[in-house]
Order: sequence, then structure tokens, then C-alpha cells
Amino acid sequence: MKELKEFFEDSGRIVDETLDKLIPSDNFEPKRLYEAVRWSVFAGGKRFRPALVLAVGKTFGADEAKLLRTASAIEMIHTYSLIHDDLPAMDNDDLRRGRATCHVKFDEATAILAGDVLQSMAFRTIAEDENLGAEIKVKLTAELADSAAKMVDGQQLDLDGEGKRISIENLEKIHRNKTGAIICISARSGAIIADASENELDAITKYASSLGLLFQITDDLLDITQTTEVLGKTAGKDLTSKKSTYPSFYGIEGTRKLAEKVRLEAINSLNKIEKDTRILKDLVDFILERKK
Amino acid sequence: MKELKEFFEDSGRIVDETLDKLIPSDNFEPKRLYEAVRWSVFAGGKRFRPALVLAVGKTFGADEAKLLRTASAIEMIHTYSLIHDDLPAMDNDDLRRGRATCHVKFDEATAILAGDVLQSMAFRTIAEDENLGAEIKVKLTAELADSAAKMVDGQQLDLDGEGKRISIENLEKIHRNKTGAIICISARSGAIIADASENELDAITKYASSLGLLFQITDDLLDITQTTEVLGKTAGKDLTSKKSTYPSFYGIEGTRKLAEKVRLEAINSLNKIEKDTRILKDLVDFILERKK
Repeated sequence: MKELKEFFEDSGRIVDETLDKLIPSDNFEPKRLYEAVRWSVFAGGKRFRPALVLAVGKTFGADEAKLLRTASAIEMIHTYSLIHDDLPAMDNDDLRRGRATCHVKFDEATAILAGDVLQSMAFRTIAEDENLGAEIKVKLTAELADSAAKMVDGQQLDLDGEGKRISIENLEKIHRNKTGAIICISARSGAIIADASENELDAITKYASSLGLLFQITDDLLDITQTTEVLGKTAGKDLTSKKSTYPSFYGIEGTRKLAEKVRLEAINSLNKIEKDTRILKDLVDFILERKK
Repeated sequence: MKELKEFFEDSGRIVDETLDKLIPSDNFEPKRLYEAVRWSVFAGGKRFRPALVLAVGKTFGADEAKLLRTASAIEMIHTYSLIHDDLPAMDNDDLRRGRATCHVKFDEATAILAGDVLQSMAFRTIAEDENLGAEIKVKLTAELADSAAKMVDGQQLDLDGEGKRISIENLEKIHRNKTGAIICISARSGAIIADASENELDAITKYASSLGLLFQITDDLLDITQTTEVLGKTAGKDLTSKKSTYPSFYGIEGTRKLAEKVRLEAINSLNKIEKDTRILKDLVDFILERKK
């Protein structure tokens, strides 16, 4: 996995540089707003979604320059969703990536607005990409907007289900929307920019769907097995809030077996692609074995 | 102004029909979310921004079919901003268009998410418009995203200025961003879709800029001179919150004179356009003479 580690470091650095150019400096008026935006965007996130855009795009032969704005736009959408999810009216979280959440560091109004402006900036970032043609930008915009709407659907379903026993089908529906949709568009957008074939796009969509599910399953496991210190966010929250999770349905061992099964599905989808998919396979194992 | 009244009725009806098709029904899961979206979108708003898209577009000869989705997308952005502005952490308003605001009728989390999803839907609505070419859709998306970001800037500046004495320059900066940017893109998008010339686009931009300013000036006047019952939102709020407004700088009579001056500027911009601009002129007088 040495190759993957290097890939993550490289893609993380270049995505950070791109985001730094795209987001107004914290001297830009209104200062407080862009300080808050930068506080949350540059909080040491893993940049997993942008890495997925780059990994899939490069697998199908796209130039990095064509992928960077879309990768950054997706990270903006992801960050906006974290800022809003952490709000007192939602998950009411004080800690994210080991430091104060946006509304704690600034205030609620600023956090709401920072999320709002990040969403606008994401769509502007794609529309103003000089390395992509208009047709592709429209397709990416339509798919990203659809995924962003699904993400909101998922958050609402999650809130509606709080304190209730929900079925495993509903749990999967929540995750497919809340986290799955953005992971899916991350992988798809790389393939779309690289002009992959319909069959390849289909295989990548299935791969991303398994990857998204695996991401959620390991998230649920980490909430139980890790400390707040390691996670950088409040651990054990699912249990104290009596949230339905994969371990609450299958137990810890059963959930680990499920994770193995989903890992295999992801790998099988990749086997249908006649390219060097090593990085994409390593990404699956990285998710499975992550410690935070 | 009979013609304008009919124009408003016709455009309001067809925009409502378009929005009704674009927004998931309130049976769509998650139900609570789309009930909240519909509560705020179909709250009896004036549909002033969509009317402006249609009026400018038709002035320059665009088919109505090409204008409807963009007009609806702009109304979605406007509605999302109202929902978020009304939140307890922001303006904390219970009443909007004569009925409970979104977070009062539903709850804060749902109101935040309803605003969020409306912003995503707005960009999807333009990207999926089958009546426009890709180049135009990209241009509209870039400009709408930029205006939506400016609107957020304006709201933050407004919040930052609360309880302080601010300069008239800062007051104008707030309004140019908070309400002016979306009114400007409304007019510009009609001209862009109609493929107006650069000179025409320039004149329309100046017209829209004056119109936006006039809108804010009359808003400030109405807050003082009208009742809550007529406005459908809390009247006298600017005074009780010691907010800087045009009347606080110029008094009521001075503000009325300023409104007349801005009206003339708007009309003068239109005089540079060699088309039948009667509807656009009537719109200026409608704003000047509005009672709510």
C-alpha cells in the first residue's frame, strides 16, 4: 500500500493547493465568513472524495488538470454538509477532526452561511473550469446537484429515524443517500471527465456504491472501537444516542464479516475493467483497515 | 399598469406550475423535507425575480419555454435564502408572507435542510434544462452561483453590522450583495438566454442594479410606514433592532426623494435599449409604488 500512501499524499497536497486558490482568502470581506469557510475546509480532512475523483480519472487516462476543480468542488459540498450536520439543531457536535466545529469556533449564523456559500462555490468551481468542455460541465453539474440533494434527503431520513428502531432496509437507504451519493459522484465524475465507456461507468458506479457502503460500515465500527482522541470526533455517540447502526443489527463480528463481503463486491466490480485498477483496489483496503 | 398586472398574473401562474413540476411532491420521501420545501416555495410570494427573468427575456425576443426553468431556479435560490435568513440564529423571524416561517411550522433542522436542498435543486434545474444549449447553461450556472455567493456575503455583512452604526457606503454594499446580486442575475439571465448584445446586456445590468436598489429603499420605507398585517411579516423591525436603513440616514422624505432619483436612473438605462421596454418601465413603477 506504499503506492496508495504516496497517491494520497500527492493528491491531498494538490487538492489543498487548488482549494486554497479557489476559496477567497480570510482577508476577503466579509472576513468572518471566509475565516469560517477556511477553518472548516482546511481542518486536516482526509480528502478521500477528491482522491477518489483523481484515482478513477487517472485510471481511465484523464489529465490531472481536468480533474482538480471537480475534485475540489466535491470537497466543498462535503465540507458544507459537515458544517451543517454539526449544528446544534442537527447532530450538535462540538468536535470535528480534532478541533472545534465551525459554529463553536465562530457562531451558528456564520456556520450556516459558511455552508451555504460553500455550496454555491462548488457549482461555480465546475462552471468556471477552463479545462473542461461545456457538455461535460453540464453533466457534472447535474449529477453533483442530484447527489447533493440526495445527501440532504439522507440527513433528513437520519434525523427522522433518531430514537426509533428502524429496519436494515431503511438504514441502508439513509446511508445510500447521506454518504453514498457523494462518494458515487466522486468516482463517476472521474470516469465522466476521462470519457470512460458506458460499461466502464457502470462498473465504476457499482464499485463506488460498495465503497460507500464499506465506508459507512467501518464508520459504525470505529465509533464503537476507537477513542475520541484517535477519531478527532466524539466516539461512542451512536450507542449513547441509541442510533441504529450495522453493529446494532449484526454485532461487531457480524459487521466485520459484512465488511469483508462488501469489500469483495467492490473488488469484483473492478475486475470488469480492463485497466490497471491497483490504486482503486488499494483504496478499498484502505477503507476497510482505516483506524479513523 | 393594467398590462403589468396581467403580466404578473400570467408569469406567476406559469412559474408556479413549473415549480410544481420541478419540486418533488410532499409524498416524496423524506416527506417532512419536501413538505417544508413546498410550505416555503408555495407561500404566496410575489414571484418578482422570475417575472423579471421573463420580462427581460421576452423584451429581447426569447421564447417563454427557454426562460421558465431559469426563472424557477432563481426563485428556488431566493426561497432558500428566506428560509435560512428567518432562522433563530439569523433574523429569528416567526412570520413570512403572513404565515409561520419554515422553522416555526416544522423545526430548525428541517428548515436548514429545506434551504440546502433548494440550492442544489436550483443548479440541477438549470443543468437539466432541455431547452437551452450547454454553453448558455454553463454561463447561467456560473453567474447564478456567483450571485448566490454574493447574497451570502451580504447576509454576513448585514449580521456583522447589527447594532453598530454603519456608513451609507457599507449599507449600500450590504444591499448590493444581499438583494441586488440576485435581482441582477434575474435580469441578466433573461438577456443572456435571449442572446442580447453586449451593449444591451450592459444596459440591462445597470437597469437591474437601480431596480435592486429601489427594491431595498422601498423595503425600508414599508417597514416604517406599513403594518405587520399588510406586509405579512413583522413591521417596524428595523427601528426596534436599531438597524441602519435609508430612512435612518435620510429620513422618510429624503428617502422618498432618493427613490425618485433611482427610479429615473433605471428608466434612463432602459432608454438606451431599442426595444419595447414598457413592461420593464412599469416594473420600476410597480416597485416604487408597492404597498407590501
